[in-house]
Amino acid sequence: MKPQSRQTAAEELDAHDPLRAAADEFVLDDCVYLDGNSLGRMPRCVPERLREVADGEWGAGLVGSWLHHDWINLPARVGGRIAPLIGAGADEVVVGNSTTVNLFNATASALGLGSRRRIVTDESNFPTDLYALEGLQRLLGATITIDRVPAEDVLRALDGNTALVLLSHVDYRTATVLDMKRITQETHRAGGLVLWDLSHSAGALPVDLNGCNADLAVGCTYKYLNGGPGAPAFTFAARRWHEKIRPVVSGWLGHKSPFAFDPVYEPAAGIRRLLSGTPEVLALSALDASLSVFERFDLHALRAKSLQLTELFIQQIEQRCGKFGFGIVSPRDPDRRGSHVAVAHDHGYAIMQALIERRIVGDFRAPNLMRFGFAPLYQRFSDVEACVGALEDIMRTGIWQAERFRSRAFVT
Amino acid sequence: MKPQSRQTAAEELDAHDPLRAAADEFVLDDCVYLDGNSLGRMPRCVPERLREVADGEWGAGLVGSWLHHDWINLPARVGGRIAPLIGAGADEVVVGNSTTVNLFNATASALGLGSRRRIVTDESNFPTDLYALEGLQRLLGATITIDRVPAEDVLRALDGNTALVLLSHVDYRTATVLDMKRITQETHRAGGLVLWDLSHSAGALPVDLNGCNADLAVGCTYKYLNGGPGAPAFTFAARRWHEKIRPVVSGWLGHKSPFAFDPVYEPAAGIRRLLSGTPEVLALSALDASLSVFERFDLHALRAKSLQLTELFIQQIEQRCGKFGFGIVSPRDPDRRGSHVAVAHDHGYAIMQALIERRIVGDFRAPNLMRFGFAPLYQRFSDVEACVGALEDIMRTGIWQAERFRSRAFVT
Repeated sequence: MKPQSRQTAAEELDAHDPLRAAADEFVLDDCVYLDGNSLGRMPRCVPERLREVADGEWGAGLVGSWLHHDWINLPARVGGRIAPLIGAGADEVVVGNSTTVNLFNATASALGLGSRRRIVTDESNFPTDLYALEGLQRLLGATITIDRVPAEDVLRALDGNTALVLLSHVDYRTATVLDMKRITQETHRAGGLVLWDLSHSAGALPVDLNGCNADLAVGCTYKYLNGGPGAPAFTFAARRWHEKIRPVVSGWLGHKSPFAFDPVYEPAAGIRRLLSGTPEVLALSALDASLSVFERFDLHALRAKSLQLTELFIQQIEQRCGKFGFGIVSPRDPDRRGSHVAVAHDHGYAIMQALIERRIVGDFRAPNLMRFGFAPLYQRFSDVEACVGALEDIMRTGIWQAERFRSRAFVT
Repeated sequence: MKPQSRQTAAEELDAHDPLRAAADEFVLDDCVYLDGNSLGRMPRCVPERLREVADGEWGAGLVGSWLHHDWINLPARVGGRIAPLIGAGADEVVVGNSTTVNLFNATASALGLGSRRRIVTDESNFPTDLYALEGLQRLLGATITIDRVPAEDVLRALDGNTALVLLSHVDYRTATVLDMKRITQETHRAGGLVLWDLSHSAGALPVDLNGCNADLAVGCTYKYLNGGPGAPAFTFAARRWHEKIRPVVSGWLGHKSPFAFDPVYEPAAGIRRLLSGTPEVLALSALDASLSVFERFDLHALRAKSLQLTELFIQQIEQRCGKFGFGIVSPRDPDRRGSHVAVAHDHGYAIMQALIERRIVGDFRAPNLMRFGFAPLYQRFSDVEACVGALEDIMRTGIWQAERFRSRAFVT
């Protein structure tokens, strides 16, 4: 009989992980990948699906595939697959364009739902969200007001002219989760609408858009949804707005009869009016395949595992690296924490480069934040241990001070 | 010695076609495909490139591929490949988003270049172009004026308040080519700018944007550029506008330092400011591979072949099908004709369905236009003969009157 070696806490958690089988759905390698919050790993089913779409649908089916392979309905069909992950109805989500474009369109179109002219957002929102608002302001000038306030002051900033509040559900730096239900409710009480950016939520934690009575949402699909680099983003609109909203970025696929080539825009019924240009068939097909992985696993089990991962990480950082000057920036309260952990350190950039050299991949956000993402579908608890072990070693030996970790080339 | 059978005109043209080798670059099948003006055939190199990007870049390289596989520069790099096909500098084109989004953004942003507030367009422009303008009007209300006039009246419609003229270089129905040089010149003389939609031009005929002193252009890449279904569209801005234009749909990839996560938008230098969201890596890579085919063939030879094809088609329709009530709608003047031919017939829909049943694929545009596209890279002159022969047979036998050709399902 072989002597059984004592398992570490992480090994034990991995051995009893009810989601253990999910990792088999992904292409894995020897790297400890803690950046699924930036670009998710590739599901194994994707290359085969891309091959089928290229060879079978485009190459052989040609233009007839719009009908015979139902390309035309891809944006709504893939939207229907995202819907259960964000608490939406299958007829309330479409996929296409980038998050930036969808944010711009949803914001600009929401202005048409009423006469108010003020937009409130978190001053620390993801930059592209802020830039989209700046673009809208450039176009509309003094006819609208855009106020950036700290996230905690948003409710106090509401007034009788507030048309829209635009917030990220999970903060891209700190992983702080906002209280979607309360903010939506209070904003409604003040007569405004809320547009939620779910880029760092979708696929990482259960979102309950309809349970919160949300109005509009957008989000990216290449992070926790594993749709691939630059995968198309989604737009959600609550059913009650479908027949009222008039899209600003209106295009032929959002027309009620795209193939009538009508010179006058008549919006499609339902969520489809929020489509604009021709669907991105290759990318939507890859995303469609990626999303199939979620159907085999429960989102609440994913959330439970995500919290266990981040909890273990925070504990281990404190226990093993506390003396090296790291500060946990992400909320300790699990209810307020997304699926990544931000750690502050004055030399965070160089330290992260030293980790990456050891094939432990997180990322860095200026001025001093190291981000470690824990994508519960494929993450192992032993990844946490490997990361903290390497971090401890890097700090103890001082190797992070080596010249080669200083140059700031490109940082994702 | 074998007796030599007499070659048809088409066979002889095929035998001497200097672009004969180009067809070998594409996946061909037994269908006579005359719809490359809607969705181009798939170049053979695409599936392999998709596999490499999926397995090697996304699957194995993960987030590091933004740097190591230079994903971040794909929009500008692929733009540089399109540039010589449209007479632009390599630093004047970026690729990303749909044509609709790019049209909206270019139009809205162009308004910021001056104080004029009127936009003039062709009343028969492609619907998505018109819808994008309607969306802009919905947002800006009475502060702007949008006038739709017949293409031939555009120059007469210019006035001192005309900011922008938005035109399709080649009409999607009739294939009529507008005089880009003259229209641009006259519009400039009146103090306006021109935005050209090159969706039906790029890859089909040489376009000379800089030779015409054009200001802005957009275009799709899934027609004659063979980028694949829903492939990302391009935006051109003349170098003289690069430092002046402020994009309305501004996003993080258009920031001068995207990875600084600056809360305030500072436009990137040059054409990159017209980028918005994260680049569509899979689709851009497929398009990049597709465009490589063009580098081996001369665009003027392509144009010459395209005109030979459309000329032969028009001649044969008149000779063999003249008595069946077909009317050639596309210009007879080759200088004014793009790379497809529109043929009017009261029963065009049913006749096109009968052709498609025989695996001769064109398309139909209401109320009565049959469109036949001739993509010179892979088209054979014998395709023309096969099509006209089938058409003659369909008309002679009256088979097009069969019940099964009447139902109007989905028409691409």
